[in-house]
Amino acid sequence: VGKPGTDVYVVGVGMTRFGIHVDRDVRDLCEEALFEAMQDAGAFPDDMEVGYVGTVGLAWDAPIMAGQIVFEQVGVSGIPITRVENACGSGSNAIREAWLAIRSGEYDVALVCGVETMNRPLQDQIPRFAMFGGGDALMEGTMGLFPPGIFAMVAQQYLNAGWITREDMARIAVKNAHHGSLNPKAHFQRDLTLDQVLSARMVSFPLGLLDCCPMTDGAAAAVLCSQEAVPRFRRHAPVRIRALSQVSGTYCEENPREFVADTVVRAAQQAYRKAGLRPEDIDFVECHDCFTMAEIVHTHDLGFCRREEVGRFIREGHTGLEGRIPFSVSGGLMSKGHPLGATGPGQYHEVVTQLRGEAGRRQVGDARIGLHENGGGFRHGDTGIVCVSILERAD
Amino acid sequence: VGKPGTDVYVVGVGMTRFGIHVDRDVRDLCEEALFEAMQDAGAFPDDMEVGYVGTVGLAWDAPIMAGQIVFEQVGVSGIPITRVENACGSGSNAIREAWLAIRSGEYDVALVCGVETMNRPLQDQIPRFAMFGGGDALMEGTMGLFPPGIFAMVAQQYLNAGWITREDMARIAVKNAHHGSLNPKAHFQRDLTLDQVLSARMVSFPLGLLDCCPMTDGAAAAVLCSQEAVPRFRRHAPVRIRALSQVSGTYCEENPREFVADTVVRAAQQAYRKAGLRPEDIDFVECHDCFTMAEIVHTHDLGFCRREEVGRFIREGHTGLEGRIPFSVSGGLMSKGHPLGATGPGQYHEVVTQLRGEAGRRQVGDARIGLHENGGGFRHGDTGIVCVSILERAD
Repeated sequence: VGKPGTDVYVVGVGMTRFGIHVDRDVRDLCEEALFEAMQDAGAFPDDMEVGYVGTVGLAWDAPIMAGQIVFEQVGVSGIPITRVENACGSGSNAIREAWLAIRSGEYDVALVCGVETMNRPLQDQIPRFAMFGGGDALMEGTMGLFPPGIFAMVAQQYLNAGWITREDMARIAVKNAHHGSLNPKAHFQRDLTLDQVLSARMVSFPLGLLDCCPMTDGAAAAVLCSQEAVPRFRRHAPVRIRALSQVSGTYCEENPREFVADTVVRAAQQAYRKAGLRPEDIDFVECHDCFTMAEIVHTHDLGFCRREEVGRFIREGHTGLEGRIPFSVSGGLMSKGHPLGATGPGQYHEVVTQLRGEAGRRQVGDARIGLHENGGGFRHGDTGIVCVSILERAD
Repeated sequence: VGKPGTDVYVVGVGMTRFGIHVDRDVRDLCEEALFEAMQDAGAFPDDMEVGYVGTVGLAWDAPIMAGQIVFEQVGVSGIPITRVENACGSGSNAIREAWLAIRSGEYDVALVCGVETMNRPLQDQIPRFAMFGGGDALMEGTMGLFPPGIFAMVAQQYLNAGWITREDMARIAVKNAHHGSLNPKAHFQRDLTLDQVLSARMVSFPLGLLDCCPMTDGAAAAVLCSQEAVPRFRRHAPVRIRALSQVSGTYCEENPREFVADTVVRAAQQAYRKAGLRPEDIDFVECHDCFTMAEIVHTHDLGFCRREEVGRFIREGHTGLEGRIPFSVSGGLMSKGHPLGATGPGQYHEVVTQLRGEAGRRQVGDARIGLHENGGGFRHGDTGIVCVSILERAD
């Protein structure tokens, strides 16, 4: 087996189309994503030495041991298989566990999958407060502090400070809809106009319906391996995980601070430091744009501009496909969709596809280094989890 | 930070009394166990670099991000915190992730917790089929193949083959009840007679009520660290994790075989090989005795006798406190209790307590090396997960 401390590579990715799949359960969705990822890597079930599945799992069609249940569908059993849950960051957390497992020297090849069904009828039997609580169901959940409300409060703060306008928010929706229109795996494949976004039904002021990501079903998967194992999987250019970080919120109530989490800043700084890179070195970003306002926060938290100038930065088009630092080139959570546990591996799918130069009409020019950011959960106004990875084309 | 490939040590353990705690939620239970573990290690919240929580989490009072929710109770936040779920093996899986994280070289000190509430009124809102399915709710669960039924079938096979008698099964319950009577943290602290066990209400023939573990609430925690960090936590003799293995079932339907999983055998063989030890080197065992029949299977699967002679082996008292290889010295799942996610860390608590020579009236004489086995889940007649660790007193 491998060497402790080895670099880790992504050698295969797969995903279902994200969308509404009321007729498919988690096994069916994962089967497609897992087979695609193994095929993409030129790998076989017997190559897999360790497995991780990320899912919030509120759908009850895979409540316990979801990992073993979905991996068996593609002939992978016997190996250690672990289910990870960490709110909307479950899938990235699963990737991180695989990364740690390979770096420990115990395993050379890992199979990772993220999945969620959000639209299955079975779900109506579940107390949804937990999901809508976005995390701490006993605290914020029962107080009604749901994700749209949280980002609506952040938006109010930014609007009051004059850092952004309402139109800047809508521009994110328009941009990500356009990116989604170029992605055959996206939930929504249609352009939006500023007018459509601004006149959409209100959800939580100032966030309208088109400022929010949809309820999406889907699965995404990846094959990861140690440096030593890379030569076994040369169907595509390997992608190196140059840095990976995970943090949780600090929930420090004594600290006087604004209603903005510092989780993304901390995770990004750790990742940049580990990679020895700066924001200027990044070619594109897949971020956790669960709301237009979320992408705005990430734009400055990931280091691409100062907070006070984020409105102008967006207005000037720097985060568009042809801009200085394209954001959410897959369509993002807003248009590609946000099937909780599948979101992180779905972002990996996009970053790897871009780094291979295989993203078709949404290809970012000369993409060598991509940044991935996936978060989840809320507690006392802070984010529960944020994962950041920096991936690099390695050939 | 640490060195990739480092050995990992247990330097602190803590647990609530296992029992029925309808008035305590997961936060409250974990707070006690986590504080006790940190205090036991002489560690502070700021020492913790990475955290894992294992819980099946069907209780809904910690549905999403359970890790962050319980760790904040003891002032641990900001660091990467991950919830792991793997049926009744969730807690051991959490320990394993911490072990991998330290061995990766990314972290020196990890905090791990396992927890479950099984008796809270809130649970009545939940479709219990998932829990009673013991794993694959869509398959065995809907067919009624619940854990007592599975082990009842195994028992029938052993009885028919003449490998055991009904009394041998009952002897396990009597033995483990006696061990529990000596453990102030056990759910049941009372002796049982053979007659009581044999005449108890039938659950699934031939398993009576006292052949089954109870529904228990509780939490247990541990502080793990790298070899380099051991000198920082010298309140007690450190315990080295000499080997740790995790496997899942193979679910291979083509293979003509008996209705007995090979998961424990495979996990044990891996652990013995990694440790460079044989069963003769082990001083005592904490195993997953969810039913009397389960401990019987583990007795030979872990390599202490041949299957055909397991009845005689038990009859001769070799697995009692004064025997050749004491099993379930804490009282086991049968008497200490089985709060799913807390079970694995609770077993670690016992093994570490024994290796430190602090187990009081249930102390195993000259305990230098202990074996821990924790399993969970069923699929197609195989076990979903089995974890085995071999722990060694390291001073």
